Amino acid sequence: MKDPISVLKEKGGSSISPLRWEGGVLRLIDQRLVPYETKWLDLKSWEEVRDAIRDMVVRGAPAIGITAAFGMALCAIGFEGDGGDELLEVLEEAGRGLNDARPTAVNLSWAVKRMLNAAQSAKDAGHSVMEIKGLLEKEAINIWMEDVISNLEMGKFGAQLIKDGSTILTHCNAGALATGGYGTALGVVRYAHFSGKRIKVLADETRPWLQGIRLTAWELLEDGIEVEVICDNAAGFFMKRGEVDCVVVGADRIALNGDVANKIGTYSVAELAKANSIPFYVAAPFSTIDISTRSGEDIPIEERSSIEVTTIKGITLGPENVIARNPVFDVTPNELITAIITDRGILSPPYEDAIERCLRKSS
Amino acid sequence: MKDPISVLKEKGGSSISPLRWEGGVLRLIDQRLVPYETKWLDLKSWEEVRDAIRDMVVRGAPAIGITAAFGMALCAIGFEGDGGDELLEVLEEAGRGLNDARPTAVNLSWAVKRMLNAAQSAKDAGHSVMEIKGLLEKEAINIWMEDVISNLEMGKFGAQLIKDGSTILTHCNAGALATGGYGTALGVVRYAHFSGKRIKVLADETRPWLQGIRLTAWELLEDGIEVEVICDNAAGFFMKRGEVDCVVVGADRIALNGDVANKIGTYSVAELAKANSIPFYVAAPFSTIDISTRSGEDIPIEERSSIEVTTIKGITLGPENVIARNPVFDVTPNELITAIITDRGILSPPYEDAIERCLRKSS
Repeated sequence: MKDPISVLKEKGGSSISPLRWEGGVLRLIDQRLVPYETKWLDLKSWEEVRDAIRDMVVRGAPAIGITAAFGMALCAIGFEGDGGDELLEVLEEAGRGLNDARPTAVNLSWAVKRMLNAAQSAKDAGHSVMEIKGLLEKEAINIWMEDVISNLEMGKFGAQLIKDGSTILTHCNAGALATGGYGTALGVVRYAHFSGKRIKVLADETRPWLQGIRLTAWELLEDGIEVEVICDNAAGFFMKRGEVDCVVVGADRIALNGDVANKIGTYSVAELAKANSIPFYVAAPFSTIDISTRSGEDIPIEERSSIEVTTIKGITLGPENVIARNPVFDVTPNELITAIITDRGILSPPYEDAIERCLRKSS
Repeated sequence: MKDPISVLKEKGGSSISPLRWEGGVLRLIDQRLVPYETKWLDLKSWEEVRDAIRDMVVRGAPAIGITAAFGMALCAIGFEGDGGDELLEVLEEAGRGLNDARPTAVNLSWAVKRMLNAAQSAKDAGHSVMEIKGLLEKEAINIWMEDVISNLEMGKFGAQLIKDGSTILTHCNAGALATGGYGTALGVVRYAHFSGKRIKVLADETRPWLQGIRLTAWELLEDGIEVEVICDNAAGFFMKRGEVDCVVVGADRIALNGDVANKIGTYSVAELAKANSIPFYVAAPFSTIDISTRSGEDIPIEERSSIEVTTIKGITLGPENVIARNPVFDVTPNELITAIITDRGILSPPYEDAIERCLRKSS
């Protein structure tokens, strides 16, 4: 079986990935510390995986999904009984725990469900507990590998939209670190770069977690791609001055009508792009489309604690007693989105029809 | 002669001010340290004043203007010759030095010019150097006092636009600390609050200098006005959710056609307000209108150093080698502005006509 990291190196020209799977241990780079420190955490139980997701050791919808899949595999591997039914029960409990760690991204529940289905099928086919453990490990690696392949596909499709000499604005980090590797929005950037186009990225710093200045800037500099960071509130200024040719962002969940939930601030960028007649693209694997969500209004928006806004690295930014609101995602309505770049091709409005056509093709 | 601080206490209900004038010394609160530390700097020469303006000890267009006026007074007071012509030359040199400290706000050059005119008139009227020194000190205090009175006026006019129970979004700090006291945008907020309206403020944190979370939040908490801070990129989210009733911001310079230069991010907030049908108000003394500037395109936009974005309190936020762009103002086009609240009343579009009517009235 091929290793996702070697596929990334060979086909993508960049082998940055937020995870490793080594001898039954999930290794995650602590993304709260990137780029100040490169610290790999070794996780050996699903509870450790849940905590890592909740505490933002790993972030980015696809990366969270892959991590959760390995969390399910670790749950199975750590199971000490010998009954298939009992294992299934334990896995279901772990699945609930993992699902509750973050509410907005669809990839988390999608990956948990896929692992549960794999376990169920294996049990139904009469496999032993030991065999089910092996199959679940393989399934998690498959999920990872598929994500990498899908990012490479998306990059290829999306790069067609990027003209030589473009400046691309992006928000948050939809890069190698947010996925199994290569990235969604930054996968498009990478593909354009490695296929010889001269491009520049303007990266929103993305408060409060600073994914833009910390992760996106780091990734792109590592790969030799030109990048400048701007404060989130400067995106409109550069658009109005004609310094932005297009916007590419990722997605945490896409509703059936094409509404997109993504990092807080994405909606603002989309509204500003529209006002300045700049194409606004979303790049996400087709699995980010949640067929059980009709529109953006049905997507739960996580609100995290005030302290994530009022402090940076333990330093207090404002008065001691100040309260901050901290919604971490927003919804961009479909009418602001020029196209959705997926691993199955580029979707154009009206998205409801485009998505249904894709679903029919695959069923 | 009445003291501006006592006028603020008596008529405004709040005596926060970024400056004091005590025994021929200009005292400035170091706004880079608010609210962590209350440190007053004593300035005794125009060069110290210039450095304080350039290095952001004092910020906010009206406060910069008042500070520059005292800088000119300090230049005169420190003059050791006895010739009026010579004094005028020294003042002109100081004026050029002060003007160059920050390029965007019009109040700086306006105040310098007014002080130069006062000196010229006094000399032409045959006053001695000693008398000119006294007259310039008085003129600087007048400029401060007029600003305080004008803020109180603006607050009264502007509060008519604020409904009981409103949530007001503001950007940066257009408050007591940005003026001689009371504030422009926050003057409107204060007037509404102290006249009994129940209001709440959503304060954009305002990267990179964090004026929203540091200064606006601190001021409002000091005065018992309800405030919540949000990241700059969350303003659109709260507008779209219907949680913002109006926006009130300040201005650094207003062109004859009503285009407004203000803190970076103001344009984005205005565009988002328009998209969500929320009134967008600018509050600024009439003197912020620069009759020599026809439109926003003629306003120079200051770009400051990368390090102001890539570090906070000496802490590096991103990779060592990352470069950030740091424009510190932007221009909001007049068509996004619902009304301009001035000390001469509320201006409505078309602004070119409204401004000309006001100018004719006063000439």
